[in-house]
Amino acid sequence: MKPETSSLPLVIRAPVTAEPPSLQDNIADLDRLRTAIARSLPPSLSERALCIPFQAMAGLGRRFREAVFTGHAVLNVLRDRVEIVDFIEESEPVAGVALDLGTTHLEATLVDLSSGDILAHTHGPNRQMEYGADILSRIHFATAKNMDQDGLQQLQAVVVQSINQLIMELAESAGMAPETIRAMSVSGNTTMVHLLLGLSPYHLCREPYTPLVNSPDPFPAAEIDLQINPLAPVWILPSIGSYFGGDLISGILAGGLDQLEETSMLIDVGTNAEVVLGSRDWLIACAGAAGPALEGGVARMGMRAGPGAIERVRLDRDNWRLDIGTIDDTPAVGICGSGLIDLVAELYLARIVDLRGKLCRDTGFGSAKRQKFVRKHLVDTGDGLVFIIVPAENSGHGSPVVLAQVDLDAMMRSKAAMYAILTTLTSQVGVEFADLARIYVAGAFGKHIDPAQAITLGMLPDLPLTTYKSIGNSSLHGAELVLLSEEARKRSRDIGGKITYIELNVNQEFMIRFSGSRFIPHTDPALFPSVPVFRVDSSSEKA
Amino acid sequence: MKPETSSLPLVIRAPVTAEPPSLQDNIADLDRLRTAIARSLPPSLSERALCIPFQAMAGLGRRFREAVFTGHAVLNVLRDRVEIVDFIEESEPVAGVALDLGTTHLEATLVDLSSGDILAHTHGPNRQMEYGADILSRIHFATAKNMDQDGLQQLQAVVVQSINQLIMELAESAGMAPETIRAMSVSGNTTMVHLLLGLSPYHLCREPYTPLVNSPDPFPAAEIDLQINPLAPVWILPSIGSYFGGDLISGILAGGLDQLEETSMLIDVGTNAEVVLGSRDWLIACAGAAGPALEGGVARMGMRAGPGAIERVRLDRDNWRLDIGTIDDTPAVGICGSGLIDLVAELYLARIVDLRGKLCRDTGFGSAKRQKFVRKHLVDTGDGLVFIIVPAENSGHGSPVVLAQVDLDAMMRSKAAMYAILTTLTSQVGVEFADLARIYVAGAFGKHIDPAQAITLGMLPDLPLTTYKSIGNSSLHGAELVLLSEEARKRSRDIGGKITYIELNVNQEFMIRFSGSRFIPHTDPALFPSVPVFRVDSSSEKA
Repeated sequence: MKPETSSLPLVIRAPVTAEPPSLQDNIADLDRLRTAIARSLPPSLSERALCIPFQAMAGLGRRFREAVFTGHAVLNVLRDRVEIVDFIEESEPVAGVALDLGTTHLEATLVDLSSGDILAHTHGPNRQMEYGADILSRIHFATAKNMDQDGLQQLQAVVVQSINQLIMELAESAGMAPETIRAMSVSGNTTMVHLLLGLSPYHLCREPYTPLVNSPDPFPAAEIDLQINPLAPVWILPSIGSYFGGDLISGILAGGLDQLEETSMLIDVGTNAEVVLGSRDWLIACAGAAGPALEGGVARMGMRAGPGAIERVRLDRDNWRLDIGTIDDTPAVGICGSGLIDLVAELYLARIVDLRGKLCRDTGFGSAKRQKFVRKHLVDTGDGLVFIIVPAENSGHGSPVVLAQVDLDAMMRSKAAMYAILTTLTSQVGVEFADLARIYVAGAFGKHIDPAQAITLGMLPDLPLTTYKSIGNSSLHGAELVLLSEEARKRSRDIGGKITYIELNVNQEFMIRFSGSRFIPHTDPALFPSVPVFRVDSSSEKA
Repeated sequence: MKPETSSLPLVIRAPVTAEPPSLQDNIADLDRLRTAIARSLPPSLSERALCIPFQAMAGLGRRFREAVFTGHAVLNVLRDRVEIVDFIEESEPVAGVALDLGTTHLEATLVDLSSGDILAHTHGPNRQMEYGADILSRIHFATAKNMDQDGLQQLQAVVVQSINQLIMELAESAGMAPETIRAMSVSGNTTMVHLLLGLSPYHLCREPYTPLVNSPDPFPAAEIDLQINPLAPVWILPSIGSYFGGDLISGILAGGLDQLEETSMLIDVGTNAEVVLGSRDWLIACAGAAGPALEGGVARMGMRAGPGAIERVRLDRDNWRLDIGTIDDTPAVGICGSGLIDLVAELYLARIVDLRGKLCRDTGFGSAKRQKFVRKHLVDTGDGLVFIIVPAENSGHGSPVVLAQVDLDAMMRSKAAMYAILTTLTSQVGVEFADLARIYVAGAFGKHIDPAQAITLGMLPDLPLTTYKSIGNSSLHGAELVLLSEEARKRSRDIGGKITYIELNVNQEFMIRFSGSRFIPHTDPALFPSVPVFRVDSSSEKA
């Protein structure tokens, strides 16, 4: 992940040695500084104008003198120019924050911009959640009448607070003053970026779905009250459209999809499922609402991957024992996306969930052990069947952790949407799944998901498991890359230029494929040769 | 004075016609705007990066939509980039303020940046005067211990208030909203510029006399609370050193000295006397304290050119009548620089002031009319001789307007300094006064002075009067030029690069020449063949 030093971080330090002024050479201090820097600039920067932002002048002048005209200049490396922003001692670190700005969750790292080392890591909630769980409700809050700018300003203030909290934690953890954080990169979906910048998201969710801005120019951190160095450039990963944000560009960067010779695919499931297909020669992408059930947004027991979340489920069908794993091994309080996929896949293979994704009311077949298991776990609440994953006495909150049919339905819609997205996308360019060299799976989803289980459900294509590669929080990794490398910053813009984006909201084919995918594994089982198919028998037909 | 339209004002309007977004073309609004502008940019700008400052985004997005994607973009034309800052209707004017930022006095014009027309003109005091009349006392106030930043901040706030007052007057006079003022250029001496920008002037007056900055980059008006459009670029005329400010660069620009084939000279007397010699191939300059007596700073009756100031004096030596002219023809309240020069020259020719610049105690010669005139006007106050210019009963304030010996002494030092500066400068490059094609005289001094009288005093070289050309407030005119023309902005920087600056504070030759110049017209009368020389006789010798 660590780019070469020659790859030009967003902020660099330049060694400066200048002669003190004399009567024979009494040009202004900042002109002296500018000239000295121009001499020591890397060749790649020598063509760019060297500017001094207004806010920097007084401090620069003072510190340059205090240091007796020798030390290190801090330079913001912008595309069209280089800004001289500070003058520091050699020992002072130059760090930047990479931020994954999620709708529900923020994750950030503190990066040493000279070495590329990760100095600290933290995460926390996006406190905008209090104003609406999903993107649409946030847009509504920001743009509702009679509130006008206020809603927008509130949401901006709240997310800036959330970010400042992380910044404080990062600085504390690394033992650094916040002022020594001299850059920030932000990877987020288009709506989150608009709200962070205080820009109206009104048109994002209205046909024809146009953002106010896709590629904002870098701006000083002080403009939005980020508690880092006021002149730190904030570099926003460019987005491509309302539903295709910088977080995915970041993922493409981190996965290196835009540099690969062979056709590959990137799947990122956050609040939306976002999918990119392509290689260094071409890229095509689409996004759709496949995420909520997998991100804790819909399932009643659902939750984000966090302590007490069931993330792994195995059902031993010889002994009919349910083996669950929670994050941090603490008592279960809910189930996260990967746990849900595991669970439903296992229940399908155990024929407790049928191919339509329904809990099977009558499953009085199989061994006695199986029947005992089913009686213990499958309960009719009067309001429908419920599968008890963890009974009240073993849970972390004193209530049972259950899977209700409604949760299952949401999960089925998500998995159907996901597969429909993947097939729609490949069919657009005539690529077969078997042609894919690699499928990168990003996000918390990608980190925890077991591709075999997702294949069982018909969520991911039935390919050799080695095709799948989890790349973790690629949105965050991409943000780290743009902090560290000008080439990455250029790539992020180039990706926007060469990617073709398919709007699924208006795609007929997608809707047809979505319907076909609402079975386990699929209405056409031939697509999933590795998955056993259990015909719906008459007993469960009654359900 | 009006440059061609093709010369690129600091802020321009670019016509924009863009298609409204559709599902087939739903790129972000600001990307749409940027693309449309890129298409319509003048070829000279097509190489520059098109940026959108953070503060501009929200308003740009809103207005671009309100205008249904057709209208005029407002562009800040910077050297290394073009900033898109607003979107307006065709009818809305785009104006800029040119400011001559003097130590005692401010003068400003409102300029239509499209047509080059001057829309309004005003002037007023620099209210920093309350904190110190001259540059040194301002520097002291700004940097005195126990006050530290406070003194500097106070002086900055006060000059910004003074400027905002002028801006208000200009806007009112032109019937424009201050927000439609979208650019500002400032021409001032190095200290005034430092104080305006809130930069410490500490080293300006201490060897080796280095400014903190000579060439500040343009910055948004809001940075220093100027009450014009917040994103209006403020363009500071570059200075060359502590004692050689942007006001003189501005004068060179306005006079066109840097473009002339023949060697010429520019003299600007403000608080300092600043002189430039050269042509399009070379420029040499120096500055010295020759001004105070001529600017109302020292002479007890001295005042700036303003209503009631005696600006012209003629003594009819046939009838021994004193003919005085005041500004606005109001009763006299004081005397300004040009009046003082006139008066002393006339008194010298009348042998009431001798060649050493002393009022002559015993002048009992000549006609009865002359003797009567002398008795009436030359009075011994017990504290020395005083020449009554206007008696109490005819003055504007009920006291006589007089010339005391102390005023005369200050005037003599100023005139000696001026001539010494001119000769030191020409001798540096081996140019004779007679070689000069033209001598431009700038400032209020240049506007009102009668070169014949200044020659009589030995203040200006004894050349044909047609050599002299008054160019008015060239500091202000230069500021107007940089508002209107990129070529002028480039010239102003180039001048700084090619000018040789002579520091008179450390120049031995200057001191020798200064001593030689403390006579009327000079210790060497051969230098002033047109001026009659009156030997000091024994009677006045006693004085």
